[in-house]
Parts: sequence; structure tokens; C-alpha cells
Amino acid sequence: LNPLAERLLQGDRRALARAITAVENGGPERAEILRAVHGHGGQAHVVGITGAPGAGKSTLVAGLAGRMRDAGARVGVIAVDPSSPFSGGALLGDRIRMGTGEGLFIRSLASRGHLGGLSRATGDVVRLLDAAGFDVILLETVGAGQGEVEIMRLAHTTVVVSVPGLGDDVQAFKAGILEIGDIFVVNKADLPGANQTARDLMAMLALGAPRPQGAWRPPVIQTAAVKGDGLDQLRQAIADHGRFLRESGRWAERAAADARRRFEEAVAEAALRRVQAQAEASGAWQQALAAVETGRVDPFTAAERLLEATVREATPR
Amino acid sequence: LNPLAERLLQGDRRALARAITAVENGGPERAEILRAVHGHGGQAHVVGITGAPGAGKSTLVAGLAGRMRDAGARVGVIAVDPSSPFSGGALLGDRIRMGTGEGLFIRSLASRGHLGGLSRATGDVVRLLDAAGFDVILLETVGAGQGEVEIMRLAHTTVVVSVPGLGDDVQAFKAGILEIGDIFVVNKADLPGANQTARDLMAMLALGAPRPQGAWRPPVIQTAAVKGDGLDQLRQAIADHGRFLRESGRWAERAAADARRRFEEAVAEAALRRVQAQAEASGAWQQALAAVETGRVDPFTAAERLLEATVREATPR
Repeated sequence: LNPLAERLLQGDRRALARAITAVENGGPERAEILRAVHGHGGQAHVVGITGAPGAGKSTLVAGLAGRMRDAGARVGVIAVDPSSPFSGGALLGDRIRMGTGEGLFIRSLASRGHLGGLSRATGDVVRLLDAAGFDVILLETVGAGQGEVEIMRLAHTTVVVSVPGLGDDVQAFKAGILEIGDIFVVNKADLPGANQTARDLMAMLALGAPRPQGAWRPPVIQTAAVKGDGLDQLRQAIADHGRFLRESGRWAERAAADARRRFEEAVAEAALRRVQAQAEASGAWQQALAAVETGRVDPFTAAERLLEATVREATPR
Repeated sequence: LNPLAERLLQGDRRALARAITAVENGGPERAEILRAVHGHGGQAHVVGITGAPGAGKSTLVAGLAGRMRDAGARVGVIAVDPSSPFSGGALLGDRIRMGTGEGLFIRSLASRGHLGGLSRATGDVVRLLDAAGFDVILLETVGAGQGEVEIMRLAHTTVVVSVPGLGDDVQAFKAGILEIGDIFVVNKADLPGANQTARDLMAMLALGAPRPQGAWRPPVIQTAAVKGDGLDQLRQAIADHGRFLRESGRWAERAAADARRRFEEAVAEAALRRVQAQAEASGAWQQALAAVETGRVDPFTAAERLLEATVREATPR
């Protein structure tokens, strides 16, 4: 067993932080650590919190984390939003809201250049926090871009945060994100126009495709995260959605689909590694690469030829 | 040769649109089309335009496309921003700015669910527009999220758009995006505070890591896209950066790195396809998958075992 993974599974926080860094760096240790934590976890509720900059997401996340911890949960926070204060070091007010100690872990993924892409890196960190026994993982992202939507797929429950009074211009993405929201929050509900924003949201949700019987109906919740208003309702709605996923079988379906995707990824990577090692030894890799780089052969044809040659070579007559 | 690709290379616009859809859908036709266009293109200058919603990116893109076309260039526009008016159908004013006809092609990638991820889909569309002979490809994204940064890596030149008077809150991402900007634009420069915003930007750029001799120094350009002010300076700065990349050898380096990445991706995919076909025929794939889904074996170990078995089976004794 990987020693870092072993200590992580025993609840060692420094080992968790170091394991995350190792996994982010990629390479053989990534597979080794993820392999070692396999079979642990599977219980963490991954909750995405998304919304435009200025919607107060970080304070909402901090307040929510505090309430969840009060209720006895261990909470991990992953900030994928480069403008999040968690990316630098949380603001004092947010620190106080969240509390400190063993039941809380914060990690920012705002630095660039993750091998294999940001959504893979985020998925890896989710797996490690899950294996380390966190009950809830809060994933904070700016929901504005399509790239973010890919990251939000990692969440069981997606909370879309808006605020009264932000121009249509800034909230225009709301239309695009309407279908991925499981829970809608109107934060800063003490500002004028909060009821109207909530009504608008409910109207937009009602206009969408009709939901079949037994489907989840996204609630719209008003919060004032700075004061703590509405946070318990939000915590309750998140728990309700988690129960809905488990009882409807969706939680298990998701886990199976996730396992399948990771298996295929592992086969593709391991196969690439083998072919590359064999073809580099014979010089065929370098030849194929040179042909692709100079434009003489397209990558697909070069890959097929390389595989043909590799299989032939591995098959003694 | 793929008939769609053949017509695309002859300049058929409908074939281009259909090829993009086919490539977005993935599957064997993706490889077939990309294979067929290989060796064509390589000359298109890919320019990313990024900035917060409300910064006027779409109008800037439209005005810039218009000026580039006036200068004789064929211009492709890819909108990855779901709030972009190009995603629905450009606003009338922007339509007029861009003009119409053969020298312009607009595509929105705002719909969700691209196989292999949005940044791969965007890269594919860039390749097709390049092969179809477009001189410039303008890539419009919301720069707010980390997922977007991955997409911006596709650009040769990254233009970061800000505006005077947007709160610090909304522009906070600027700090994170400062290093990826090759050109900075203060749009809506007719609003009060434009000079101050430009000065702030120049100060932030000067504070960054010292740039070695011969390095590119990002200019800060003020524009008022609605009136057309500053667009020619911006077009010139983009052309200057393109020349810098070519003369410094960076353009060629990028192209080689891109070819290498696509080759590795093609080997991994082709190897996965072969292993899966062989292992599905023997039932080994289904067994391994069941073991992973139920949590009995981790994906990495299952992948290694499957590959061992596949190689043994392919090697007659």
C-alpha cells in the first residue's frame, strides 16, 4: 500500500494534503494513490455551488459548511473559482463562519496547468476527500463558462446561486444553467427585489420541459449568507436531494457510470504506456512522431500503423 | 477521402457546418474527417477573446471581424460563451458590424454534452476552420473559470477584455488571467475611468515577473467597440503578436506540441478500442467492468490485468 494513502485513510490531514498534491502532479504516484484508496468512501455527498462572481458564493459556502459541521458532518471545500477568497486564504469572516479543526478541509484548485485537465484534477481531489471520510464535499465554481459545466458534472447536487439586482447581462448564463440546477438560491435576500428574482426563477423553471412524476422539483431558497438567514433551509434541501438520489437509484447509477469511465480511462492510459514503451525501444515511436510533426502522416493513421506494428512484433511466429 | 471533408476543403460552407456537427458528435466519423483534413491549414491565426460578461466582448468580436474582413481576411468566429448573442443568433448591430457572405463563418459551442469534453470539441472546430482556409479564428469565451483557461490554450493570441467601472468583485479574475493575456483591451473606453483602468492594468503588468529580453510585452489598448474606436489598433496588435510568434519560432513549437498531443490521444484511443473489442469478444471486458463497478477491484489494477490477459491471448505459443 502507498504510505501516503495509508495515512490519509487513517485520518491524517497532512497526508491528505500531500496526497492531493501528488495526485495533481500526475505521474505514476497518481495511479498508486488512487488505487490504494479504492474501495474506501463512496458515501460523500458532492455538492456544487455555482454562480456569477459577486453572488456571495464564498460566504454562502462558508456559512453552509458551518451549519453542516454544527450538525455533525465533516466538510471538505474545493474552490475551483480563481476569484474565490478560499483560493488565497479565506477572509476572516468566512473563517469564523466555517469554524476550524478536524472536521473541515479547504483546498483551492485555482492554480493552472493540471495534467489531464482541471475536471480530472477536481475529480481526483473529490475521490481523496471521499476516501478520507468527509461526509459532504462543497465544490465552488464560477458557473459562467461551459468548461465549468464539465466540472459541475462531478457533483451529486448542483446549487445555482443568484442575487437580486445583478443586471440581466451578468445573469444571462442563468438560462443555460437552468437545467443543471437541483436547488436555486437567491442570496443577499435582504436586498430589494429578492422576492421578484425568486418569482422570476420559479417562472423560468415552470417554463422548462415538463417534469415526469417522481422527478425532483428544484426548490428556490432565499438566503442572506452574511447574516446566516436561510442556511438551515438550504442544508435541509441539499439533504433532501441526497435522499432523493439514493432512493431513486440515481446515486448507485452515477457511481457505476463513474467506475466505468475511470476503468476505460485506466485501460487507455495503460495501453498507451505499454505501446509507447515498446515502440520507443524499437525507435518506431520516434519515427511515427516525426512523421506526424512534419505533417506527412495524420495522427490517426500514424497511431493505427504503430499499433499494427506493435502487435505484429509482440506475436512471434 | 471523406466526401464531407473533400467538399469542406473546396470551400463548401454547408459541408463545413455539417462536418463540424459530425466531429462534435464523435464516433468514427470524427477521426475520418480529421484524418482527411490533415495537412491542410496550419496558417490560421487563432485569437482568443476573453473577459467577464458585460465587457462587450461580442460587439468587440463583431467589430474586429468586420475590420479584419475589410483588410481581406476570411474570419471564423467560435463562441464558447453561453451568454454570447452569437450563441442564439447575433444581434442586428453585431451582424452589421461583421458583414455577411463567404468570408465569415460563425459557430456556437454553447450547447452542452460534447463527447471528450468541450476543449477537445473546440480544438476540433478550430482544426476544421483552419483546414477550410480561414485566416483568423476568433474564439470568444467567458474567462471567469479555470475550465475556460484550458480552452484558451488553443489560442495563439489571447486578448483579455475589461471595462472601466465594473466592480473589483467582478473583475477579480483579472489577477488570475493576467499571465495568459497577450493583449489587454479596455473596452467602453468612452465611459469615465477608462484611463485609470488602463493605468491600473499597466501597473499590474509591470508588477509581474520581469520579462526577459526579446519577450513579448502585452500592450493595453482602449476601444469603444460600439463606435468602432480602437479596433484598427487592436487588429494591428493582433497581427504584430502573430508575427512575433512566427519569427520567434513559437508558432512552429506550438504546432509540433499540438501534433504530439493529438498523436498520443490517437494512440490511446485506438489502443483502447482494440483492447475493448478483443476483451469483449472473450467476455473479459464485462468481467473486469463488473469487478470495478462493484468495488472489488480498482480501475488501475483491473486495467493492468486486462492488458496482461489480452497480450497473452494475442501471443500464440
